[in-house]
Amino acid sequence: MLSKTYTKYIQSLHHKKFRDTENAFIAEGSKVVMDLLNSSKMECIHLLAKAPWLNEHEHGIRKHFAGPIEVVEDFELEKISALTTPNQVLAVFKKAKPAPIDPKKKITLALDTIRDPGNLGTIIRIADWFGVQAIICSESCADRYNPKVVQSTMGSLGRVELLYTDLAAWLEKNRDIPVYAAALDGKNMNSLKGLSEGILLIGNESKGISDELMQMAHEKITIPRVGQAESLNAAVATGILLSHI
Amino acid sequence: MLSKTYTKYIQSLHHKKFRDTENAFIAEGSKVVMDLLNSSKMECIHLLAKAPWLNEHEHGIRKHFAGPIEVVEDFELEKISALTTPNQVLAVFKKAKPAPIDPKKKITLALDTIRDPGNLGTIIRIADWFGVQAIICSESCADRYNPKVVQSTMGSLGRVELLYTDLAAWLEKNRDIPVYAAALDGKNMNSLKGLSEGILLIGNESKGISDELMQMAHEKITIPRVGQAESLNAAVATGILLSHI
Repeated sequence: MLSKTYTKYIQSLHHKKFRDTENAFIAEGSKVVMDLLNSSKMECIHLLAKAPWLNEHEHGIRKHFAGPIEVVEDFELEKISALTTPNQVLAVFKKAKPAPIDPKKKITLALDTIRDPGNLGTIIRIADWFGVQAIICSESCADRYNPKVVQSTMGSLGRVELLYTDLAAWLEKNRDIPVYAAALDGKNMNSLKGLSEGILLIGNESKGISDELMQMAHEKITIPRVGQAESLNAAVATGILLSHI
Repeated sequence: MLSKTYTKYIQSLHHKKFRDTENAFIAEGSKVVMDLLNSSKMECIHLLAKAPWLNEHEHGIRKHFAGPIEVVEDFELEKISALTTPNQVLAVFKKAKPAPIDPKKKITLALDTIRDPGNLGTIIRIADWFGVQAIICSESCADRYNPKVVQSTMGSLGRVELLYTDLAAWLEKNRDIPVYAAALDGKNMNSLKGLSEGILLIGNESKGISDELMQMAHEKITIPRVGQAESLNAAVATGILLSHI
C-alpha cells in the first residue's frame, strides 16, 4: 500500500515546478521505462510496477537499478499515473546532467517555441532515428520532462541531449555554423542533401519562427507543396527535412 | 441561451454512434470551420459562435451558409465543445457524400488500423499537402469525424476523400496497382522517387501492418535509420515517405 506522502510526491512530479525542485521526473510504460533504465544518462530512483510486469522484467531491471521496488495495484497506479490509461509500470528518474554540446561537423536541431508536448516528444524521437545528437530549445518550448513529452519520445529521451537556453544568444555564439530555417517561402529542401554541418531551425506550431531568429538564418528551406494544406505539423516537417539531409 | 435539447444534440455528436445516426459531425476553431465552409464537399447545418468572432467573419460565412447563426457565451461554448480549450466557433456539418475513388495514375494512401485520432488527422493534413486525393482506411481506423481528427486535419478534411472499407478486399480488387508497404526491413525509400502510380500502405502505431495485408504488398519500403530509435510515429513516417515520391 502506497503511503499518502509517497503518492503525493509522485503526483507532484506531474508539474514542472516540483520536477524542478525535486530534480526528478516520471516515466511510464514498459518500453519507455526499460529504455531509460538502459540509458547511461539516466538514473532511476523509484520504481513502481504491477506484479505480473515485475515477474517478467525483474531480471532486466536489476542490471540497472538496485533500489527498492514497490508492487502496486491497479487503483494505486491510476492515482499516480499521468496517463489516461495507466500502463504496467511507473518510474522516477533523476533529471539528466547536461553534457556539452558541440554543433561542429554535425546536424543540430534548434526549436523555437515548440509548445505542444506531443510534438516535442515526437521531434526527440525523430532526432534519435536520424542520429541527431542534440536539440537546442528556446526557453518557451514545452518541458522535456513533461509526462506527455517523456511518453511520446518512446524512450529516445535518454539518447538525445537537450539544452534549454536563449536561442538567439546561442545561435550568435555559434554563428560560424550555418542555420537553415524551415519556412513556407524558402529554397527547395533538396538543397540540403548531403549537408554534414548545420543547424536546422524549426518554428512554433502556429506562428512559425520569430522574426529575431529568422534574421539569423543563412537560408530558408521549404518542403514543396503539391496540394492545398496551409502548413504541416512541426514534427512532421522536422522528420521530412531531416530525411532529406 | 441554448436550449437543453440543442445542447444535448451537439454533445451527442462527440460520440460516433450519434454521428452515425445523425449523419453529422462537429468542427471547431476559426481555421477549421472556415476551411470546411469553403469546401464544396461539406454542408454546414448549424453554426454557433461568440459575438466578436461573428462580427469579424459574418461576411465570409454568409457566402456559404444561409441558416440561422447562434450567438453563444463562453460558458455555453464550453458545454458543447469537445476541446479542452474551446475556440471562438463550433459548427455542425453533414457528413460528406462519398465520391468514387480511382487509384489509377496517382498515389493513394492505405491505412491499416491507425487508431490515434491525432495521427489520423495529421495524416489527412499531410495527404492534402502532398496532393494525395484519397485515403483508404481499414474499418479499424479512428473515425474521420471524431472531433480530435477533425481538429488535427486543420481544415484538410474537406479536400481529401476517405473510404472506410475492408482493406484486403479493396487491395485485391485493385491488384494491378502496385502496393508499397512501410516497414522496418524493406528497400530504401529512395526507390520510390518519381513514382506516379501506387498505393502506400501504412500500419498500426505499435503493431505495424497485419500479416494478411503485408502479403499483398509488392514491395516493402524503409526509411533509413542512422540513430537508435526503434520506430517513427506513423504520421511522421507517412510524411517522410510521401516527400520522397
